[in-house]
Amino acid sequence: MAEADKSQVGLCGLAVMGQNLALNVAEKGFKISVYNRSGDKTDNAVARAQKEGLGDNLVGFKDMGEFVQSLAKPRCVIILVKAGAPVDATIEGLAQHMEPGDIIIDGGNEWYENTERRAKALEEKGLLYMGMGVSGGEEGARNGPSMMPGGAKAAFDVIEPIITKVCAQTDSGPCTTYVGPGGSGNFVKMVHNGIEYGDMQLISEAYDVLKTVGGLNNSELAAAFNEWNAAELDSFLIEISALILAKEDDQKPGEGFLVDKILDKTGMKGTGKWTVQQAAELSVAIPTVASSLDARFISGVKDERVAAQATYMSAGLEPADAEVAALTPEEKQQLVDDVRAALYASKICSYAQGMNLIRAKSNEQGWNLDLGEMARIWKGGCIIRARFLDRIKKAYDRDADLPSLLVDGEFAKELVERNDAWRRVVTSAINAGVATPSMSSSLAYFDSYRRGRLPANLVQAQRDFFGSHTYERVDMDGWHHTVWSDMNSADSITTSGYSA
Amino acid sequence: MAEADKSQVGLCGLAVMGQNLALNVAEKGFKISVYNRSGDKTDNAVARAQKEGLGDNLVGFKDMGEFVQSLAKPRCVIILVKAGAPVDATIEGLAQHMEPGDIIIDGGNEWYENTERRAKALEEKGLLYMGMGVSGGEEGARNGPSMMPGGAKAAFDVIEPIITKVCAQTDSGPCTTYVGPGGSGNFVKMVHNGIEYGDMQLISEAYDVLKTVGGLNNSELAAAFNEWNAAELDSFLIEISALILAKEDDQKPGEGFLVDKILDKTGMKGTGKWTVQQAAELSVAIPTVASSLDARFISGVKDERVAAQATYMSAGLEPADAEVAALTPEEKQQLVDDVRAALYASKICSYAQGMNLIRAKSNEQGWNLDLGEMARIWKGGCIIRARFLDRIKKAYDRDADLPSLLVDGEFAKELVERNDAWRRVVTSAINAGVATPSMSSSLAYFDSYRRGRLPANLVQAQRDFFGSHTYERVDMDGWHHTVWSDMNSADSITTSGYSA
Repeated sequence: MAEADKSQVGLCGLAVMGQNLALNVAEKGFKISVYNRSGDKTDNAVARAQKEGLGDNLVGFKDMGEFVQSLAKPRCVIILVKAGAPVDATIEGLAQHMEPGDIIIDGGNEWYENTERRAKALEEKGLLYMGMGVSGGEEGARNGPSMMPGGAKAAFDVIEPIITKVCAQTDSGPCTTYVGPGGSGNFVKMVHNGIEYGDMQLISEAYDVLKTVGGLNNSELAAAFNEWNAAELDSFLIEISALILAKEDDQKPGEGFLVDKILDKTGMKGTGKWTVQQAAELSVAIPTVASSLDARFISGVKDERVAAQATYMSAGLEPADAEVAALTPEEKQQLVDDVRAALYASKICSYAQGMNLIRAKSNEQGWNLDLGEMARIWKGGCIIRARFLDRIKKAYDRDADLPSLLVDGEFAKELVERNDAWRRVVTSAINAGVATPSMSSSLAYFDSYRRGRLPANLVQAQRDFFGSHTYERVDMDGWHHTVWSDMNSADSITTSGYSA
Repeated sequence: MAEADKSQVGLCGLAVMGQNLALNVAEKGFKISVYNRSGDKTDNAVARAQKEGLGDNLVGFKDMGEFVQSLAKPRCVIILVKAGAPVDATIEGLAQHMEPGDIIIDGGNEWYENTERRAKALEEKGLLYMGMGVSGGEEGARNGPSMMPGGAKAAFDVIEPIITKVCAQTDSGPCTTYVGPGGSGNFVKMVHNGIEYGDMQLISEAYDVLKTVGGLNNSELAAAFNEWNAAELDSFLIEISALILAKEDDQKPGEGFLVDKILDKTGMKGTGKWTVQQAAELSVAIPTVASSLDARFISGVKDERVAAQATYMSAGLEPADAEVAALTPEEKQQLVDDVRAALYASKICSYAQGMNLIRAKSNEQGWNLDLGEMARIWKGGCIIRARFLDRIKKAYDRDADLPSLLVDGEFAKELVERNDAWRRVVTSAINAGVATPSMSSSLAYFDSYRRGRLPANLVQAQRDFFGSHTYERVDMDGWHHTVWSDMNSADSITTSGYSA
């Protein structure tokens, strides 16, 4: 094959995401070779490309060697296979056919340290490696996702012309950038997913409060979400929630709304877990994301919850659903407005936490990540895409060293405007027995962060009391220790153990 | 030295905890050899023993070989050095002088996998190894701690007569037991510490609500804590909190209470972090502990908080402390009673979470841990010792397979009794701008767990919408997928990216 006829890029792994991304690349005018371990998926991808009139730009292969040899140099292969061992196996296969200067880019949700390990191993062979987070689901992969590539800058320079056209486009440019060195692309994608968990949970809490506290029916719920989607909450997740809430049961037409038939158990894939674990590792509080992960865990023990509800009903405590709200149309609209405010305020807290987690890691690793750029490349294509992200970008444009989004002047103003409504929503949910773990933990985060003096003095005094951990004083320098209780005096500890 | 003159046990590492534990062993009538890498601490321990009339039972060594040779066979050495590399170095040194059948017991806060790694390595040399969590601080080590030994059962059998006398004693027996195999002793101690974080944070929130919402002064606060300590909240941490709140400033006599001079920044050592990370790993929600860890993180960014308070005051939102409460004595007493109820109810949630974390790990590892026994050995000696633990023990006696403490009949009754007060406390704190992250996340946990139907159906619908993750239905078997939005129809997604 003449070099000029060769493909500009290769894609290995043709499940739904891979197929869609390959078609997207072909559609943008790049010639792409595709390969899959099982050949039927290759056939499938080629057939789809032909059907969509993209057959000239997409060439299918069933032999890995031929696949690699079909690529123009430096050869660049994007892999979209399951994270972990399948990625290692794929890399091993590809590397056998590659030569120094060639490039492998993992587009999966990989643990960032795995990417760094692989980059190091491939470096010895002269190969370049990147971990590139790709968000947008199937639809994003097909029409333009958000792409977060991190790793070898020289590899980015090769792939940049392609991904710049393939990714989503917004008024502030294409939704990709060189994230940074090492595993930073994976890390940023991981935090993106954690934030996504938070957004989804906050939306479900908004839905629950409107439905259970406000008594809104599905049509009213869909209308509220559509109303929200026209203003500051304008986002992919709000838009699809409105569509979901209005969707009739497709399996039992005429028998109500589909969302009401869906079991309240939520799956998860691992990136939310990693986000919470990394936050703990880096001493960054991310309660909004953490509570959304917990909500998924608790959703999973459905049988326990059903049994617990019965236990508490027997003990005289009705579940929240037993409350039947009878609000006037005006009261309903007030609640819709309040929940909208609470959702937006909580969202600001969640993104403030996520951004601070990215910065903490960037500082630890010396990645030098640009937080405003991260917000910019999330404006389109990805699951958390939202008008709101433009405000975050602008906040970091105003002050790149902002210690928290909460102290940006614009966000502070927005939070103060929503302060009363936010508290009304959380307190009325609490009074109705409706759990709003992510809204209430966001509010507690806000109230903790904006408070110069917290009751941590008592905790530190306790630590000094029983463990001589010492403490600082507000009025003197240095570390101090107090003998809080003389064991031989009247104020000594009265017991070393407890009875019933 | 004749075998009969040899020591029954050795202790290596003579910082405060080690010294105190050695004196405790000597006092209980066991002959103990002690060793420290720097000899001055050995001298110090020997001098303290002589001063306390325990000189016959405590022998100091400055040579590790002589120290090991001074022990009766099988030689058993408890090490109390810094977790991590120092433990490895100490083990390496000891092992050189030991022979098959000898025993090393690490009494530090070690990561459980490190214990398992070491046990495996020592097994090859015929040595037995245990990881034994020890809680109680300096005072507990001296007078009787809670001891959580896990690992080689044969090693436990050797040390059992000693630790059974050395540990704290309660009406339900000595505060030690064979926890289980592997690193289970360390794991249980880790969760104990996570629960300790939660207890301390909950107490600090109780203090904050009484002080800031209720306007109680320090004498009134100390009186409230003393009152609480006489009933269901009776515990070491409540008792020392009362002592702390009443303590006058020892550095500036006559100038008020010491607790008010302590900087509101809280340190931490790592076990709380591990607890949160393990909970995420095992899909167990522990929001009370997680929020207490977050509270420590947020306490640490004092400068940011002071700046944020100023930002929000400029924006028109006063900090909670600006509120001056003027409650009548009756209203104050009502608040004290309500906070007591909220604290106790939150505590039940926290322990329910911690116990479920221990069980999840036990199931994963096949440790077969006895949750009721864990509660029993925490009744005395340790930092979380409390009358309350007896109720936990009894709950598991009633039903060892209880899915959660929340559904034990007695605890359910207590929670229902406190339901209204708990909500009053959290909502009034929210209205006053006082963050109660652990009380409110405990309440959200309660309301989530006791609800048969949560809004997770919407989250799962979203996941199916953008990622084809499929969902279950409440009225049919199997996994289902819906094409929620036809890309070519009017209800397709309107935007792939957002502008300002």
